[in-house]
Parts: sequence; C-alpha cells; structure tokens
Amino acid sequence: MSCTSALTLAKTAIIDFVARVTAQGGPDFVPPERRIAVFDNDGTLWAEQPVYFQLQFALDRVKALAPQHPEWQTKEPYRFVLSGDMKSFAASGTKSVMSVIEAAHSGMTTDEFEKTVKDWLRTARHPQTHQPYTAMVYKPMVELLAYLRANGFKTFIVSGGGAGFIRVVAESLYGVPPEQVIGSQGKLEYQVRDGKPVLVKLPEVQFVDDKEGKPIAIQTVIGRRPLAAFGNSDGDLEMLEWTTSGPGSRFALIVHHDDDEREWAYDRRSRIGTLDKAWDEAKAKGWTVVSMKDDWAIVFPWTLQAPTRDAR
Amino acid sequence: MSCTSALTLAKTAIIDFVARVTAQGGPDFVPPERRIAVFDNDGTLWAEQPVYFQLQFALDRVKALAPQHPEWQTKEPYRFVLSGDMKSFAASGTKSVMSVIEAAHSGMTTDEFEKTVKDWLRTARHPQTHQPYTAMVYKPMVELLAYLRANGFKTFIVSGGGAGFIRVVAESLYGVPPEQVIGSQGKLEYQVRDGKPVLVKLPEVQFVDDKEGKPIAIQTVIGRRPLAAFGNSDGDLEMLEWTTSGPGSRFALIVHHDDDEREWAYDRRSRIGTLDKAWDEAKAKGWTVVSMKDDWAIVFPWTLQAPTRDAR
Repeated sequence: MSCTSALTLAKTAIIDFVARVTAQGGPDFVPPERRIAVFDNDGTLWAEQPVYFQLQFALDRVKALAPQHPEWQTKEPYRFVLSGDMKSFAASGTKSVMSVIEAAHSGMTTDEFEKTVKDWLRTARHPQTHQPYTAMVYKPMVELLAYLRANGFKTFIVSGGGAGFIRVVAESLYGVPPEQVIGSQGKLEYQVRDGKPVLVKLPEVQFVDDKEGKPIAIQTVIGRRPLAAFGNSDGDLEMLEWTTSGPGSRFALIVHHDDDEREWAYDRRSRIGTLDKAWDEAKAKGWTVVSMKDDWAIVFPWTLQAPTRDAR
Repeated sequence: MSCTSALTLAKTAIIDFVARVTAQGGPDFVPPERRIAVFDNDGTLWAEQPVYFQLQFALDRVKALAPQHPEWQTKEPYRFVLSGDMKSFAASGTKSVMSVIEAAHSGMTTDEFEKTVKDWLRTARHPQTHQPYTAMVYKPMVELLAYLRANGFKTFIVSGGGAGFIRVVAESLYGVPPEQVIGSQGKLEYQVRDGKPVLVKLPEVQFVDDKEGKPIAIQTVIGRRPLAAFGNSDGDLEMLEWTTSGPGSRFALIVHHDDDEREWAYDRRSRIGTLDKAWDEAKAKGWTVVSMKDDWAIVFPWTLQAPTRDAR
C-alpha cells in the first residue's frame, strides 16, 4: 500500500489478504472477475453523526417545501421539523421518520431528484464541522477503495441509504460508478409526459437494503458472493456473515468509531450505527476491527496530521 | 466491424452511431463510463420458440420433482404438465403458468438453484433443433456485444427472464458478467443453517422486469440512462423509449423474426415475443429494424453459411 496515512493495525491484515488472492498460482488465487468488495457507506465511507446525512437532506427538504404545504405547520411529525423540535421528532418513531423521508424523496422525477440532491450538497454544511457533507469522507477508506481497485477488485457500495442519493456523489468521492451503488429503493412509476418518458419517485419503499436486506441485494444485483466486506454497525452483520462464509479466502472489516476528538465515539448503545452483535461476532470470528483513534493517522481529508498518538 | 457475418442492413447504422459517440472532440462524443448498452435476452440474444427456454426448464423441473409431489398427479396445472397436455396447460392462464414457474424456482438455496440450472443446460436439448439451449444464441448479436465492448461500451442484459437463470450462462455465452445481468426476481430469504448463512428462494415474485419494469430496473440497478438499447418485442418498448429519449445521440434496434427457414417467423399476432406496438413505434421514430432473413448471413453459430439469399 503506497499510502502512508492509511490503516495501520489493520493494514497488515488487508495487505496479506490481497497478496494471497492475487498471487497467481497460489492456493488462494481468485481471478479478477470474482474479486468483489462491498462497502457500507454511512459510518464506513463517510460520517453518520449527528444524524445520517440523507435524513438531514430530508429535513432541509421538508423546510424548503413547507410553503407549498401549509398543512404541515400543524401536522405531526412535520410541525416538529418546521419548529426545530428535533427531540419530539426523534421521539415520534421510525414510521414517522420514514414518512418525512418519503415525502422528501417523492413527487418528482428521478432527474429532478438528482438535481435536488446536487444542489443541496453544494450549499448544505455539516452542523458541527461546518464542512460540506462531501468533505466528511474517511481518507483511509477512500485510499483503501483505490488500493483494492488497483489490485483488480471491483468495488461496490451496499448501503442502507438510498441508492439514488449516494449515486450523486459516489463517482467523485469514491471512484464508484452509479451501477456499483446498491442501496435502499423507493418505488418508481413509468409515465409519459408530453410524449417524453419519465420515472416518477413514489412515496413508497420498494426495498430496504439493511441487515438481511444486504446479502439479498448483493445476490439480486451482483449475483455473486463478495470476497471482502467492510462495515461499521449491526446493519452490516449479515453482509459480513454472507461474505465470510463463502469458500476460500475471505475478508471482513469493521470500522470502530472510538475517536471522540477527531470524529465521534459510539458503539453498543448508540441509536445511530449501533455496533453490538457485529462487534461480538467480529471478535469471535477474527474479523479485522479498525480503531479510528489508534489506526488512522488522518480521518477526514481536511484534517491536519493528528497529534502524537496518531503519528506512530 | 471486423465480423463478416454480422448485421448487414443495420450494420451501417450501428457503425455510424458508434463512430459518432466515440469520436473524441466530436459533437456527439460520450465518455466511456456513460456508454451503457442494454440488451433484451429472449428473442434478442437467443431464441424463444417454441416456448421460452426458462419455461421449458420449469416444465422439466416439475417432472423431475413429481415423485416428491404425488398430489400433482391430480392437481392443475401440474397434471397437465405431467401428462404432457401442453394445450390445456397453455390454456390454463398466466397465473397458472406462473405458479409452475414459482414451484420450479423455489424451495432451494441460490447455490442449489445455480447448480440445478447448470445441470439442466448440460443435458436438455431444444425440442426442434435438438441442439443444447446454449447453442441457440444469435451469432450476429454475440458479435455485436463484443463490438460494442471493444468500443468502450458496458453491455447489460435486461430480461423479462429470471436474472439467476441467465447469469448461469451470460458470461460464457455473451461475455456479460453476473453483475451486468438484470432480470425478473423471486423473493429471497436470509437463513442461517448449521451456523452457515444461505439465501433461500421463495415462491413469490419480487420484481417483474418486463415492459415499464425494464426502465425502472435500469434506473434502480444501473442508475443512468443507456445510450443504446436492443430488443425484439413489445416487452422492450418502454426500454427503447426510455433509452432514446435521453439527450444526445441514442440508438435503438429491434430484431424482427421473419425467417421461418433458419429460425421462426412471428410478430404482431404471436403469443411469444409479440412485436406490434414496438414495430409501429420503430417505424415512426426511425429505430433500426433488423430482418433476420435479409440481414443475417448466419443465425446460430452451428448453422452453415446460408443459401444465396443471405450470402449477398
């Protein structure tokens, strides 16, 4: 690995795995077309605190659309969002949160949605770092993606977030083209408007790409079992299990958020990115666990070289 | 195009289109990552008569499974299949046909299904040509796939047939890897058996990749609009409309089955591969229509150079 800022403790494990599966004539050699690597996005490739960025997009979108929906001023959970009462919004339940996400992601064509996301990403800033959301990617993980591709791997994103949302940035941030982004999906409807076909986003969920949904989506879309999988939470557990239970050499890695100085520290009891069962299974099965605090010299591309503890 | 047996009348149109979108600095230039070409499978890349090959697989599978299902001997539509009464089976309706397909495609893991399809393809023979089904591919179309790839295109299959079925042969027959095969999907269930995860095929349809389902699946899986689309029936109409309505140079082609000597002749009134509305729209919009009879020197790889009418 040519990058000096990349994974340190986990680095050996990754380099060793890549060396084995790419060694022609070796017992663990895997031809390039089967070198599939899958990456979770939120909390694995970019940050997910204080809320998933796509939820922040949805909240901003509800505010932007509010003038066209006067009824939202008195209707829950919209009125919580519009009055900034995020505590009541969070307490209103998953179904309620989903209805806001659906409202923000529907009633437009796929082309219009893409433009809306692009515009938001250009102007929105992270509430704590004040950086653009596109700057909240993990530098070591971006380098890891490139390293795997340089070794013949095809890199896929397999995210609980919406595929259409992630695709807007996946190529520029991660070098992953749209057709290698797998994610949750809303229902689409084919319509012909003024003689031109459009795909309209409906306020209904078609597929949730989380937990057991991840191996199901991998089989549905990719059609072969990955060689390596990278995640950070219990939502990735089934994807890691599915990947590592295939024959031959396999690799699983979990990013542990344990750096409350440069990023955030959370795991077993976190509402976002809960890492509990997957942590136990990682230890039981010998999966690689990366400590952001100890293993990453740099977290975000815009942070300077970190203090001594990271410069080892 | 280096291949002498390839499309003749349509050849100029294809070569002209490819030349325009690959001419760097030209007004129609498209960078390689956006050169997406989508192909229907049944009737476009391989034959679909006298019945879709996957339906034939399902019928053979019902016969193979019959000893384990004594109740099928008296239960419709299974008893039609087991007694060879295909007329009654065909007349029993779409729902009935679907139930046979679901029965033949479920109750096993995805790995077991892959093996079952492989075994069937090795032994089954086409009822009329007595060739293996894998020999029923159209030579000019296989050459076209390779020609497009040689010009930087990424080729996808977008089929009403099952993705899991087509993936078994797509790489060896067409050079298309599993992750570039889009098709209809049954529901999958994630289970852990003896500590090992498996994906079990359920007897329920998850997605039908036909008609308006094709552009929806293209958007869902690929996430960008194709540059070129190839089909043969009304089931491909929305895919061709969606493809050609994008900005810039686009290309649409329909294979017309008009050769009852070397293949089959059918179009507007056919039960299988109906070509009616899409034919009218092809004429109205100037899409390229290939005559198998007039434009193809060779249809199947195992046929000799054809009589004078094709050797022009």
